[in-house]
Amino acid sequence: MNTIKPVSLNLNVRGLRQSATLAINEHCRTLIHEGRTVCDFGLGQSPFPVPTGVVEALKLAAAEKDYLPVKGLPALREAVAEFHRLKDHTDAHPDRVIVGPGSKELMFLLQIVYYGEILIPTPCWVSYIPQARIIGRRVSLVPTTYEDHWRVTPEGLLKAIEIVSDDYRPRLLVLNYPSNPSGLTYSAGELAEIADVARKFQIVVLSDEIYGQLHFRGEHVSIAKFYPEGTILSSGLSKWCGAGGWRLGTFVFPPDLDWLCDTMASVASETYTSVCAPIQYAAVHAFRGGVEIERYLWHTRRILQTLGQRCTRTLGEAGIRVHAPSGAFYLFLDFSPFKETLARHGITSGAALCDRLLDDAGVAILPGSAFGRSRWELTGRLAYVDFDGAGALAASENIPLDQDLPPDFPDQWCRNVIVGKQRIASWLRDLTGDDNA
Amino acid sequence: MNTIKPVSLNLNVRGLRQSATLAINEHCRTLIHEGRTVCDFGLGQSPFPVPTGVVEALKLAAAEKDYLPVKGLPALREAVAEFHRLKDHTDAHPDRVIVGPGSKELMFLLQIVYYGEILIPTPCWVSYIPQARIIGRRVSLVPTTYEDHWRVTPEGLLKAIEIVSDDYRPRLLVLNYPSNPSGLTYSAGELAEIADVARKFQIVVLSDEIYGQLHFRGEHVSIAKFYPEGTILSSGLSKWCGAGGWRLGTFVFPPDLDWLCDTMASVASETYTSVCAPIQYAAVHAFRGGVEIERYLWHTRRILQTLGQRCTRTLGEAGIRVHAPSGAFYLFLDFSPFKETLARHGITSGAALCDRLLDDAGVAILPGSAFGRSRWELTGRLAYVDFDGAGALAASENIPLDQDLPPDFPDQWCRNVIVGKQRIASWLRDLTGDDNA
Repeated sequence: MNTIKPVSLNLNVRGLRQSATLAINEHCRTLIHEGRTVCDFGLGQSPFPVPTGVVEALKLAAAEKDYLPVKGLPALREAVAEFHRLKDHTDAHPDRVIVGPGSKELMFLLQIVYYGEILIPTPCWVSYIPQARIIGRRVSLVPTTYEDHWRVTPEGLLKAIEIVSDDYRPRLLVLNYPSNPSGLTYSAGELAEIADVARKFQIVVLSDEIYGQLHFRGEHVSIAKFYPEGTILSSGLSKWCGAGGWRLGTFVFPPDLDWLCDTMASVASETYTSVCAPIQYAAVHAFRGGVEIERYLWHTRRILQTLGQRCTRTLGEAGIRVHAPSGAFYLFLDFSPFKETLARHGITSGAALCDRLLDDAGVAILPGSAFGRSRWELTGRLAYVDFDGAGALAASENIPLDQDLPPDFPDQWCRNVIVGKQRIASWLRDLTGDDNA
Repeated sequence: MNTIKPVSLNLNVRGLRQSATLAINEHCRTLIHEGRTVCDFGLGQSPFPVPTGVVEALKLAAAEKDYLPVKGLPALREAVAEFHRLKDHTDAHPDRVIVGPGSKELMFLLQIVYYGEILIPTPCWVSYIPQARIIGRRVSLVPTTYEDHWRVTPEGLLKAIEIVSDDYRPRLLVLNYPSNPSGLTYSAGELAEIADVARKFQIVVLSDEIYGQLHFRGEHVSIAKFYPEGTILSSGLSKWCGAGGWRLGTFVFPPDLDWLCDTMASVASETYTSVCAPIQYAAVHAFRGGVEIERYLWHTRRILQTLGQRCTRTLGEAGIRVHAPSGAFYLFLDFSPFKETLARHGITSGAALCDRLLDDAGVAILPGSAFGRSRWELTGRLAYVDFDGAGALAASENIPLDQDLPPDFPDQWCRNVIVGKQRIASWLRDLTGDDNA
């Protein structure tokens, strides 16, 4: 019998594999299922439960079955605008809010709608580059360095723009802070300088601030304050509200970009239609915030900060180059000081490094190449979320918020993270020991 | 101040407006808000509530927060496969099921992934053509006729293929039955003949069977029975389960099309990631079916059939060309017998016809042009769903299923539909009367 052969695959998607973070998640589940003990630092999922009041709001809305307006439930769009006005001191308006099934989907639609070059500082979140590839957009990567705390500088940005003799080229700059994969962020002054460059070249900035509310000191600043006319502010429920699996993301547009907002809504009406109705009703509760949500935020921040500092210390002492994070739940590890040792053990790429770390030490991290870095670079992202968030949260709630968590808190409540970081340190020690033996 | 001008919109999306069905829905809401009484036959949304057991399942799963596997929760994929094996007697396997946030989104991803021509018999559902346009795919429309009950014939399909001297052209044929916008469907024999043509030219068939379970006699047949190797079977919760706003659609692939299924999953992992977790858990309950679901299906079918027949009779007697539907909740109305009368009143396009019907008679239907027909054709889709589905369902549950509904059931429980069809008939009578006056 004739079979229909895969000759008719779009060239843009041939060879495309599943998103690296999701793929490692499924791989770890398989290993665990086989009985191995794995420290799973691959997938960047919040370990904390969705706040109780938000879960209750979902139950109350369970019978909501109507298609909601494409841009989102009006009450939700108001809550989102008010959230950004209060939290980020930006001038957000409900008419310019669009709700999607995850901010990832919204970014994809934005890249479809906007015909221009995508400027991405690296290391960057895993999906920006594959999205551009699927759509066939031109991507210009702007590498950053460990010394610059993996953040783009105004000079670096200018250089990436001016290398092309085309000042009028339409460009979309993707910023993400606190950053996935580094946990690092920009100061207000740095954002103001980047805003100046963006304004000069009429660049649209997609500011992915999904970790904004996970700034450990609650001091997140948005570039929308400095570049209101050209910034699209992206957020959602996945990280600060622990609801990644619920799939709800938000974009807020400035008045000058109504044309992008409205066209995105048109494309949305032909693709995802509108976001799941019961989830939107529950999200109103989340974005309206209040005491329960604030308390939840401060407890989760305190746990993540304590854990991030602890990991940074151990890994730094083990010889890895790593900065203490300002937010989110990631560390971007640079193993380059071990370059020669690793090479002697046949490890010459980030992927080989991660494979061996998983095989030898049972620790899953993602290679720098998944974040837009060279495949030969010996870097990787560690997501320190492999612990029972509900248990840790409950324990933290017994300790007043004006106190630090006790030093043994991570050992007690985030055991697998502590084990994992020690396994990495031991693994490096063993490799170096072999060298010296 | 400089503003960023909309010069950088993708040409494929310039001028794209919101999906016609969603746009008319929002328009009607506005009119009703202004105090007008509108018979809203625009949006094709099931009027019935989600079955109680499924709503309860959602409440139980409200705290589920993890990202689920890209292709869907394993238990859901098993339930979907079993559903199609039982209902459609097809050989569906869980590994080849993919769950998306609405089958519309899955169709969009399929069009991205598959590089070929899209063959679409018209009248067709509103979103197939705009999706192709957004992606930049070539579309070949295959018009059908009132005489053929708005269904493509094997001869019509062959003609559309052979007009191009390119037998190896990769093609995707989109079938939809019971049909939106006509409520009509294919017999097993007709599907077998279409399957023969598809097999001969190695055409991939996207069989949109989202209304399959709303075949009034429960006798839906899938083309997958006759063309298993080349058929992608599309379904979801939106129609038979009354859960349009929940956004859950499903595709089932045959083994020969694993390459399409897997690549779609890769693209899904870079766009919507996975479908809302609580909704997936609830959907397991829906697809597993059982007595409650079967009873719900038979009651809703009986109500829709009674109402569809009643509308067909009145509108047919009024002089409109319309066939009695076999399933779903649509009628495709052909006003061409009134062509001259309408022209004398300045109505020479489907859009003008619908505008005047809404303005003069307060009845919203969608013009044939929204379904791929010529803008000058005097056709339109009527969705007879403007009634309290919960009330009608409760009333039907008091009448044994082996009986017909009493003749006055629609007048009592589906008042607005009865009013609307009479308004259309009166409006035509008045127009014709003006002519003769």
